[in-house]
Amino acid sequence: MALLAFDLGGTKLATAVFNEQGEILSKETTALDKRKGAEVGELVVRNFLSMRDAALLTGNKIESMGICVPGIYRQKTGTVWAPNIPDWDDYPLLAEIKKVADEIPVTIDSDRACYILGEVWKGNAQQCHDAIFLAVGTGIGAGILINGTVLRGSHDIAGAIGWMALNKPFSDDYIKCGCFEHYTSGEGIAKLAQKFINEKSDYSGSLKNKTAEEISCHDVFHAYDNQDDIASKVISICIEYWGMATANLVSLFNPEKIIFGGGVFGPAVSLIPNIKEEANKWAQPISIKQVSFEASALGSDAGVYGAGFLALKYLSQKK
Amino acid sequence: MALLAFDLGGTKLATAVFNEQGEILSKETTALDKRKGAEVGELVVRNFLSMRDAALLTGNKIESMGICVPGIYRQKTGTVWAPNIPDWDDYPLLAEIKKVADEIPVTIDSDRACYILGEVWKGNAQQCHDAIFLAVGTGIGAGILINGTVLRGSHDIAGAIGWMALNKPFSDDYIKCGCFEHYTSGEGIAKLAQKFINEKSDYSGSLKNKTAEEISCHDVFHAYDNQDDIASKVISICIEYWGMATANLVSLFNPEKIIFGGGVFGPAVSLIPNIKEEANKWAQPISIKQVSFEASALGSDAGVYGAGFLALKYLSQKK
Repeated sequence: MALLAFDLGGTKLATAVFNEQGEILSKETTALDKRKGAEVGELVVRNFLSMRDAALLTGNKIESMGICVPGIYRQKTGTVWAPNIPDWDDYPLLAEIKKVADEIPVTIDSDRACYILGEVWKGNAQQCHDAIFLAVGTGIGAGILINGTVLRGSHDIAGAIGWMALNKPFSDDYIKCGCFEHYTSGEGIAKLAQKFINEKSDYSGSLKNKTAEEISCHDVFHAYDNQDDIASKVISICIEYWGMATANLVSLFNPEKIIFGGGVFGPAVSLIPNIKEEANKWAQPISIKQVSFEASALGSDAGVYGAGFLALKYLSQKK
Repeated sequence: MALLAFDLGGTKLATAVFNEQGEILSKETTALDKRKGAEVGELVVRNFLSMRDAALLTGNKIESMGICVPGIYRQKTGTVWAPNIPDWDDYPLLAEIKKVADEIPVTIDSDRACYILGEVWKGNAQQCHDAIFLAVGTGIGAGILINGTVLRGSHDIAGAIGWMALNKPFSDDYIKCGCFEHYTSGEGIAKLAQKFINEKSDYSGSLKNKTAEEISCHDVFHAYDNQDDIASKVISICIEYWGMATANLVSLFNPEKIIFGGGVFGPAVSLIPNIKEEANKWAQPISIKQVSFEASALGSDAGVYGAGFLALKYLSQKK
């Protein structure tokens, strides 16, 4: 018995076969290579067919499959909105896969839902019923587990924490992606450093070696490790926002754990104690004592594990 | 068949008998009169016995009862923390009621949980699966309905929205009750007006007739209706915070409705369109279009309706 899991990103598709115990039997990654629209769906179908046939050759039958998608999964229609895949405004992924899946059940969910489910299955949220995955990368989202079930909201777009209002008054800077994401996403961190460099004519730190537009989030973390002034200023602002945002999650949801992941955590993992210290000031005082702040155990595999768990959950709920 | 509902507040106990259709058959209110600890539990027991016997005389049998408590209900232990009732740090309300309830089932929950359940049963959240009651009075709390079930969190203290971080940097003013509550609870509104009056030596508006300590939240709303400068400044600050806080609820929960209640809404009900306008700037742009902002339909009866619905839900879940 085997489970097939897909983690579709903006640039690549990870495909893994799990056994029931959550061990990876095989895994491969395929670049999207500028595919768009139906071509991306066709790639998932192609990988499904080859993985199914390969599994059969080794005596494993794929019993269920899960797909993690980079955006919003609309459960009622089976369609996907994925901002980084061209022409996936409302792509009918479920229908396309079902055409070839025969009797194999297909379960799809958003990346943030899959991240927290992956941690529940095989990461740092095992045994948790109420836990939150804060994914900080190019954008910011939260996968929120409530009493064992992922929060969907009325139209499948719950967890849009990048839009959290944390710094009044409103600024037009927040129109595109929201206040919290503006400051603390990977792109936000790089842009804040660029802004401070442009404002400080006598700056001579290591970030000066690049033009403002070339500075990446990872450059900022590297400069921070070397006590660069501007990087320190940017990171201390981020710690304040991450502390406030997680404090708000703690006060509203009273979770057992908040798990930090995505590309920025990553290098920001060492800041988790500082973030907890900041959150401690703001949050409901009993609730903050009941929560643990931890790094993702699965890193960039959280999505594929979550997709595997989607596949497994379908089978166990059917029983 | 009848349902018995208690809404216990910090100063009084409302007791109502409902029929299955949610019509109030009888209702009475008893002042707590400085009762504390076990005396408050004894009052609930006394009212239970008299209501049960009175119902029997009219041919109605109490089949189930619900109790709304002003604080946190700890579901695992059946105990209550109620900050405004002396010696109710961990009061064993469930056990005390069960001693006399015989076969009548008892269901207890927090006021914020009851408010949203009351609106679902007979108020403005009927037919909603995902809705939030924002209760703004002496304190601030949120009753959060997710897919038909009230959010509890890992230790029953979810919905502590008064602690929401909205204005950095952290100030010691927020230690006692949280940032959001500091500015926009009934007490917060009065104190902000007092602060502005003390800062403005040439102020001659209507709030000047009272000493700063005497000014109430309702005085501020009255002065606001008369275009008083300081009241206008206070209310515009409140609108900004209420807009940011509800925007954050919208981005995180993607609810169908946010319902405004508690003593402040009340007079602040006329501000709901302004709050929506402010929230519209901050929130996830699709989600904010999917939500409706409304006033509570039940006002100060939301708690007793919620308690009645707790009683009814017990029976329907048992079937």
